[in-house]
Amino acid sequence: MNAGRLHLVAVPIAAAPAGTRTAFDAATVAAALPPPALALLRATHYFLVEEARSARAFLKAAGHPGPIAELRIVEIGHAPDPAALDGWLAPLQAQAGRTAIDAVVLSEAGCPGIADPGATLVARAHELGLAVQPWVGPSALLLALMGAGLNGQQFRFHGYLPQEREALRARLGQLQADAQRGETQLFIETPYRNERLFEALLQQLDPALRLCVAVDLTGAQQQLQTRRIGAWRGLPAAQRPRLDRLPAVFLVQGDAAARP
Amino acid sequence: MNAGRLHLVAVPIAAAPAGTRTAFDAATVAAALPPPALALLRATHYFLVEEARSARAFLKAAGHPGPIAELRIVEIGHAPDPAALDGWLAPLQAQAGRTAIDAVVLSEAGCPGIADPGATLVARAHELGLAVQPWVGPSALLLALMGAGLNGQQFRFHGYLPQEREALRARLGQLQADAQRGETQLFIETPYRNERLFEALLQQLDPALRLCVAVDLTGAQQQLQTRRIGAWRGLPAAQRPRLDRLPAVFLVQGDAAARP
Repeated sequence: MNAGRLHLVAVPIAAAPAGTRTAFDAATVAAALPPPALALLRATHYFLVEEARSARAFLKAAGHPGPIAELRIVEIGHAPDPAALDGWLAPLQAQAGRTAIDAVVLSEAGCPGIADPGATLVARAHELGLAVQPWVGPSALLLALMGAGLNGQQFRFHGYLPQEREALRARLGQLQADAQRGETQLFIETPYRNERLFEALLQQLDPALRLCVAVDLTGAQQQLQTRRIGAWRGLPAAQRPRLDRLPAVFLVQGDAAARP
Repeated sequence: MNAGRLHLVAVPIAAAPAGTRTAFDAATVAAALPPPALALLRATHYFLVEEARSARAFLKAAGHPGPIAELRIVEIGHAPDPAALDGWLAPLQAQAGRTAIDAVVLSEAGCPGIADPGATLVARAHELGLAVQPWVGPSALLLALMGAGLNGQQFRFHGYLPQEREALRARLGQLQADAQRGETQLFIETPYRNERLFEALLQQLDPALRLCVAVDLTGAQQQLQTRRIGAWRGLPAAQRPRLDRLPAVFLVQGDAAARP
């Protein structure tokens, strides 16, 4: 009686092309994942997912032999219910009289458990002694960090910053102090508030600080540029990145640290 | 006259199997990268690499049509010389009378620029207005974070901790305070010092803190477990992870934060 494994597979992160509701087509998915992750997806029949509809579209685009409608796809939502974790993991547990199965965790985009649901499920799997298997795949945070040219030896991810103006100002002051000591600071915003956050960064941060704006990475509208705040301020409006309603990662860092 | 692009491609992170000097074989490389990253490698003739010998072995395993010996492979080393950056990037710049070419940056393992050289090169590329393109690939930090089941909404990577006993103790005290506030703390150690660091963590950290040890991810000797410090302490020696001379990521976090 072998127990099943809890696999963590990333979902493509590109924004949906204009006029469509999903970014998932076969070419996009085949280009986003190493072949073993695709093979795993196609061989799996139990999925714990952030959102069932997008998971079905993803699995179809990933070439799952299906039928997709007959797969066991359980929606864990944006904030999985702690009381439900054991039930979701029960099919993975070795038990007399039946075969344990593997499960794949999927978020709507990117890596489960990183700025996305999945971590409590993984934590519970560890407590239950189940094997956990993360798979290589797209992460906007990682790609942004690699592409920013900022310090990748020391960095800190903050998730979302406060929305309220004074709280945001105070938080940016703290981030700036750590950034000036050489630690890269990463944060994200809800896409329709990106422009507002970008303006706040230009207004409040030190002109010498480097700011990387990483927009729609891997997607058709990808933009990836690092400039000092002063240079961003001086840029003609037409050359500014298009941020509205696109997924973006913001990164800031000063010059203090060695950045080999 | 189009300028060339600076591409960032990850190299497999698995430890070399016992008795060999490199982990690179064709199957490992083909399994580690999405097909477009492999295609890019095979079509590129200019590489800026941490270490030339391992880069050649990697490119051969990646199926580069070569001849490998005739590729332009420039060693940038562990701490690239700032004075050399412009020369290395010169072939990418648009100039009358010759065609600009693309370059791929490679570290010895994992993602260039993340706990590895490459960031200063990328920073200079941004200053010169060159396009930078990060590609999906293996990162021990990202896989460890995904697989740990700890907070993936707020996390901080510290690189290497101090070696000196008292400095390490002080640093662990700081890390623990942030971890107890719910932020995941990630750090690494030189592989032959992993055991010593693991012992220090068990001795000094709060028994309620969660510690994930992520060893040789994607490799034959992969181990990935999260337990509370108290549970790690109580584990029979035979069940402890084998850490010696294997690449490992350590992650700690308390229970404060929501971890959806």
